[in-house]
Amino acid sequence: MPQSVFTAGEYERRIEQTKERMRERELDALVIADPANMNYLAGYDGWSFYVHQAVIVTQDRDEPVWVGRGQDANGARATTWLGEESIRAYSDDHVQSPYDLHPMDFFAEVLEDLGVDDARIGLEMDAYYFTAKSYLRLQQNLPEAEFEDTTLLVNWVRVKKSEQELDYMREAARISENAMAAGLDAIEEGVPESEAARAIYNALIDGTDEYGGDYPSIVPLMPSGDHTGTPHLTWTDRPFEQGDPVIIELSGCRHRYHSPLARTTYVGDPPQEMQDRMEIVVEGVNAALDVAEPGVTCERVERAWRDVIQKYDLEKEERIGYSMGLGYPPDWGEHTASLRPGDETVLEENMTFHMIPGLWFDDFGVELSETFRVTSDGAEVLADFPQELFST
Amino acid sequence: MPQSVFTAGEYERRIEQTKERMRERELDALVIADPANMNYLAGYDGWSFYVHQAVIVTQDRDEPVWVGRGQDANGARATTWLGEESIRAYSDDHVQSPYDLHPMDFFAEVLEDLGVDDARIGLEMDAYYFTAKSYLRLQQNLPEAEFEDTTLLVNWVRVKKSEQELDYMREAARISENAMAAGLDAIEEGVPESEAARAIYNALIDGTDEYGGDYPSIVPLMPSGDHTGTPHLTWTDRPFEQGDPVIIELSGCRHRYHSPLARTTYVGDPPQEMQDRMEIVVEGVNAALDVAEPGVTCERVERAWRDVIQKYDLEKEERIGYSMGLGYPPDWGEHTASLRPGDETVLEENMTFHMIPGLWFDDFGVELSETFRVTSDGAEVLADFPQELFST
Repeated sequence: MPQSVFTAGEYERRIEQTKERMRERELDALVIADPANMNYLAGYDGWSFYVHQAVIVTQDRDEPVWVGRGQDANGARATTWLGEESIRAYSDDHVQSPYDLHPMDFFAEVLEDLGVDDARIGLEMDAYYFTAKSYLRLQQNLPEAEFEDTTLLVNWVRVKKSEQELDYMREAARISENAMAAGLDAIEEGVPESEAARAIYNALIDGTDEYGGDYPSIVPLMPSGDHTGTPHLTWTDRPFEQGDPVIIELSGCRHRYHSPLARTTYVGDPPQEMQDRMEIVVEGVNAALDVAEPGVTCERVERAWRDVIQKYDLEKEERIGYSMGLGYPPDWGEHTASLRPGDETVLEENMTFHMIPGLWFDDFGVELSETFRVTSDGAEVLADFPQELFST
Repeated sequence: MPQSVFTAGEYERRIEQTKERMRERELDALVIADPANMNYLAGYDGWSFYVHQAVIVTQDRDEPVWVGRGQDANGARATTWLGEESIRAYSDDHVQSPYDLHPMDFFAEVLEDLGVDDARIGLEMDAYYFTAKSYLRLQQNLPEAEFEDTTLLVNWVRVKKSEQELDYMREAARISENAMAAGLDAIEEGVPESEAARAIYNALIDGTDEYGGDYPSIVPLMPSGDHTGTPHLTWTDRPFEQGDPVIIELSGCRHRYHSPLARTTYVGDPPQEMQDRMEIVVEGVNAALDVAEPGVTCERVERAWRDVIQKYDLEKEERIGYSMGLGYPPDWGEHTASLRPGDETVLEENMTFHMIPGLWFDDFGVELSETFRVTSDGAEVLADFPQELFST
């Protein structure tokens, strides 16, 4: 293995757990296109998910097979634990091709070569970067195959973290703390939003004295002023003005593992109403953290939050958190368990969640989030950052 | 229109050109899920492409309809030119749903409401973020509809840039120059790759005295040492060593418009072989730029490059460039015209390309790229940056 991000044993365990889920569903092969799942199973790391690529797991091979673009095969050699016979690359005329060639034509050949062209093959039908065309093209090339939707199959294997994964998430949390401090420090009247974004990025990549930071799967989000009710706006050149609320949501990243953190600040002296709302959020977050432990369901955790805000006659439709960890753009979420009504997933030790229960009103929003790990009897909050409304 | 990134007239022209292509293909509606195309037609800007969203264009409406998640509707109000009746949002239980709900169920309702549920509907079957599941779910919900693959339909409208778009690309080029200078300056023996990445990001977001920078669609790529033959590796904590070649590929971004730039440097005194190879790249790039003008095909431009490297008994399988401009992660490329054999696209004034003809060998690679605009009688290189092999 060229890089020692994880031990060989850890990759073996991941493959074994994946194969077990495949056996339960009587699958002979899996085509894994989600870049986070590719990394999880094979170690592959690189900004090449803008072309079609995947990792293929078959029941009868110990190693998965990486399939991607010719110029990325060296990247697979550099970052995966796979042997040369498990790295297969398509020629460049398949890329955004004017010749009626599609990368999935090559994938079909590889699946044939692996002896699974007439077998039961799982596809991540709702994953990023696995397009509708990819599906139709595979279907057309492999008329004897039987395709099953296995979206989230590997994501569910990822839910419980290993000690090494948790260490990387804790390292990411140190970066998140530094970046949040830098962002809060940069925000003041007259400073453009982009200047605060610059200060945050500086800290995100600077990392700590021991290690540098990686790019996060989501850029720092920084809705401000009228826009704190619009959580996914990115920064502009607008200068902060007296009376602006500003929400910062960011995450440090270490070996693609995240530990997101959100806080709210105010340019000037925050009005009492905003202070009051933040106190409710803090009370709600901690009430939810208090009930989190193995055996408790995700919906139960959300209900603890909802019980608090209902006391104050408030409502929030959105889910308040989600399982997360490893990720590539556009998301660090795993798309598995969510903290919301109806989600009966039972918490187990070493699951990790980002709890981000903002309250958004017509004219402003307040958010405060924590990333936490389920411990043997409670919850460990990964970042150590004051839970309060900040101001300039 | 809440933001004045483009005039109303410019959006009208884009919609009209899109509708013309729809008429040619007898389409009643288009579902546009590519975030760059959503921005192009509606102005929508936000990091929300990690959930299902799209813009729907119908022949009988002047405005497209934005469809997305409830909590992003305010973002649509803040960034698009659309009226309230053209913003439709689905409830949060559709997001990564455990309830057998999918956002495309809501999309089907909107298409029904727009009277096109039994019409000919174009889908971007091979676009980022339009998944196989999205397609199947739409098909299931709208059994009377006839679906056509319209991947790249809007991308081809984007190929020729307006004056305002070109201004933003030139502004992005200023940022690219600053970021490249910062990166080259930061690289020296013993400095970790992440420190150079930090310096680059700092400049990318700092922008210029007149404007700040936006996040680029691709993070700065910086393969170094043994890895210069692997173009899409991102940075690590490895310190640069004496004798490392380092390739930097980056782009400034202004209002989501890019102007990518790549250069190669060397830690120490570069060996003659590398100098020689860089001279070939510079000769090839300029030979290709020299033939670029309206009326010339993309493959002709590539041939000018290939003629040069063949003189030196070199070959390169990969395309040497692509049309680009507006973009969101994971790519700033438009996926339309490429500079490569067989691409007979005829250059027209105000098309813009990133020409990036690296030479990669087993032990090192050299790259040098330019972003250019096709002028009335030649090519305008957007960045002003020395064309040479750098060293520390």
